[in-house]
Amino acid sequence: MRILVLNCGSSSIKYQFIDMNNLLVLAEGIAERIGEDLSLFTYKSEKYTLKKKEMVIENHEQGLQLIIDYLLDPVNGVIKDKSEIDAVGHRLVHAGEYYSDAVVITDDVVRVMKECIPLAPLHNPANIKGIEAVKKNVPEVPQCGLFDTAYHQTMPPRAYLYPLPLEYYEKYKIRRYGFHGTSHKYVSLKAARFLQKDISQLKIITCHLGNGASMTAIERGKSIDTSMGFTPLEGLMMGTRCGDIDPSIPIYMQQHLGLNVDEVNSILNKNSGMLGLSQISNDMRFIEDEVLQKNNPKAMQALEVYCYRIKKYIGSYYAVMNGLDVLVFTGGVGENMPLAREMVCKDMEALGIKLDLTANAKFSSEIEVISVPDSPVTVLKVPTNEELMIALETQRLLTQ
Amino acid sequence: MRILVLNCGSSSIKYQFIDMNNLLVLAEGIAERIGEDLSLFTYKSEKYTLKKKEMVIENHEQGLQLIIDYLLDPVNGVIKDKSEIDAVGHRLVHAGEYYSDAVVITDDVVRVMKECIPLAPLHNPANIKGIEAVKKNVPEVPQCGLFDTAYHQTMPPRAYLYPLPLEYYEKYKIRRYGFHGTSHKYVSLKAARFLQKDISQLKIITCHLGNGASMTAIERGKSIDTSMGFTPLEGLMMGTRCGDIDPSIPIYMQQHLGLNVDEVNSILNKNSGMLGLSQISNDMRFIEDEVLQKNNPKAMQALEVYCYRIKKYIGSYYAVMNGLDVLVFTGGVGENMPLAREMVCKDMEALGIKLDLTANAKFSSEIEVISVPDSPVTVLKVPTNEELMIALETQRLLTQ
Repeated sequence: MRILVLNCGSSSIKYQFIDMNNLLVLAEGIAERIGEDLSLFTYKSEKYTLKKKEMVIENHEQGLQLIIDYLLDPVNGVIKDKSEIDAVGHRLVHAGEYYSDAVVITDDVVRVMKECIPLAPLHNPANIKGIEAVKKNVPEVPQCGLFDTAYHQTMPPRAYLYPLPLEYYEKYKIRRYGFHGTSHKYVSLKAARFLQKDISQLKIITCHLGNGASMTAIERGKSIDTSMGFTPLEGLMMGTRCGDIDPSIPIYMQQHLGLNVDEVNSILNKNSGMLGLSQISNDMRFIEDEVLQKNNPKAMQALEVYCYRIKKYIGSYYAVMNGLDVLVFTGGVGENMPLAREMVCKDMEALGIKLDLTANAKFSSEIEVISVPDSPVTVLKVPTNEELMIALETQRLLTQ
Repeated sequence: MRILVLNCGSSSIKYQFIDMNNLLVLAEGIAERIGEDLSLFTYKSEKYTLKKKEMVIENHEQGLQLIIDYLLDPVNGVIKDKSEIDAVGHRLVHAGEYYSDAVVITDDVVRVMKECIPLAPLHNPANIKGIEAVKKNVPEVPQCGLFDTAYHQTMPPRAYLYPLPLEYYEKYKIRRYGFHGTSHKYVSLKAARFLQKDISQLKIITCHLGNGASMTAIERGKSIDTSMGFTPLEGLMMGTRCGDIDPSIPIYMQQHLGLNVDEVNSILNKNSGMLGLSQISNDMRFIEDEVLQKNNPKAMQALEVYCYRIKKYIGSYYAVMNGLDVLVFTGGVGENMPLAREMVCKDMEALGIKLDLTANAKFSSEIEVISVPDSPVTVLKVPTNEELMIALETQRLLTQ
């Protein structure tokens, strides 16, 4: 089975074409700036690489056609006929409370996605465009989708309800949804398999630390709480997002600092987090350099806040699960920044966390144990792979 | 030494007149609805009780005069001469980053309080009125004050900085301040003394649960983190305040639900929390009744959210202190609601918390151990007494 995995944004399509027999990525790339004056297209397979080619891509339908054309290219392609695309798997964002698992895409699913547009006004319309493009270009190919929110639908009300007037939940659907579900699910399954343990016997905390960042408490293989909330703004400090703050701050900024609501929204989402507090960058590689090479106090201070807040979430989830077996770091930062992992895990023996500093410092792109052998909690570094998870779920749905 | 403790709100003065030799409250009461058409006044001493007397009290100066007149009353009073008021101790709210201890009130202190009015627009002006009333009525009496924020000034930057653009801290002083400091300090000292332990050797978490609610992590006798933040809206779910929510919710309410910023502020502060989520009451006694007597599912659900969020904070502070010795419950709910304490402490053995259900269920207005003897963490119920703390600090400042 060969599956085309698509992640459609408002002006982009990221793709991977995966052979499920050997889990090999046959081709991958991105169509960017769709609908702008000049678009960009990349394609990479084992034998051929096309770097950012400038061209005009008017819409998602054209973008998908281009991807298929490249896959089919007699010289540089990887398949001979459209029919060799056995399925399409979409990364989707928001399904409200409708789905807790991957779905075969039907008209009903698209209707749900449309209903949830107010909850994800940028992402859901883009996702729908991707689905419609597939329908037009390769109508015979079955489509599946994995919503970012689906994995967290197992959270109990005590975790997902906000202490707001109840009608804001009942009428306006304001609740904790959580995001990054595909990644949290993937790395937790991967961790359990690696440790040769039954996931239903484990208490796991997964830290997905990238430019966006979230943590999940996983008990018996199910998400029971997660740090992102109604939107991806809540929770950890991120590259440019503030995460948890006093909810009166956005109000104060309007009432006392002369900002309007859109400006406040933009500041909290785009100018805050690591970028705002360090005044250096949202890119943790720069922060790490400033700390390690230049001893920059602002970088150090921002990194301390970043790690302190992860520590607090570990504690929260340790408490609600009444213990912990496995702590997983993943995502760009989680996988590649030993300093952050070290600062998070320092002085956490009371929770059973004892990092192996040597193992932690070692570079590797594989799954690795980074705690000492007698650590009650096993700390792991697990490379995430959301595309693969989507492909696996698509395969599961279509062959079950 | 006899100290008059005052807690001045915008239209009220609460008072206690305390004999420091035996820590006895000689008289106490409240002047309410100051400046309204009809004000109310109460006075209670050992030998005489005046219940809500209707009268006209035009301003704080008149209110204070009335209090002094009652204290001096030849028949029902407790002193013969003004000079028997040795000092006044004020409960004050916000001193920004200026004071970390109680202060003797000088012109400088009043200047600081004025500077901090933007941070506490309702409370600081009322506090200043109280100070000025004392100056006019009994100018010779020394005044001291204990700011609600002072105790938390020992928090490190990693705990008090928000992941916002740094200028919001540097220029606009937006940071975590924390409140209820007097109560957290009092009950933690009381707990250490009761356990005959040196507070500098203890890791303590104090839960002040009243209509407002906050928690503090206390290490070596100092506040290192607390749940209320820039304002008293952040942190735990409270009677009518939401506590922690996704910071994009107040923005969403404006952008999508047609509310303006003042309406949102009012909803989050006055219609949320227990009142909003239960749709029953902000008074936990009603919630408890609905749960225990009527098995009301909405009351139960709201109480579960309430306790779950306390659990999460206990875990956070357990993690940042790398352990815990003493867990303290105080405040109206913390002292008087066994069900809430039980739900919070249930399934917390991994943190060393083992409640003694019998001791927990017992009614008592004294300090009590409510954990089992072999619980690694000692759980205590400690009656708070902010007025006494203010009097003690006032005495300390004036006699040192």
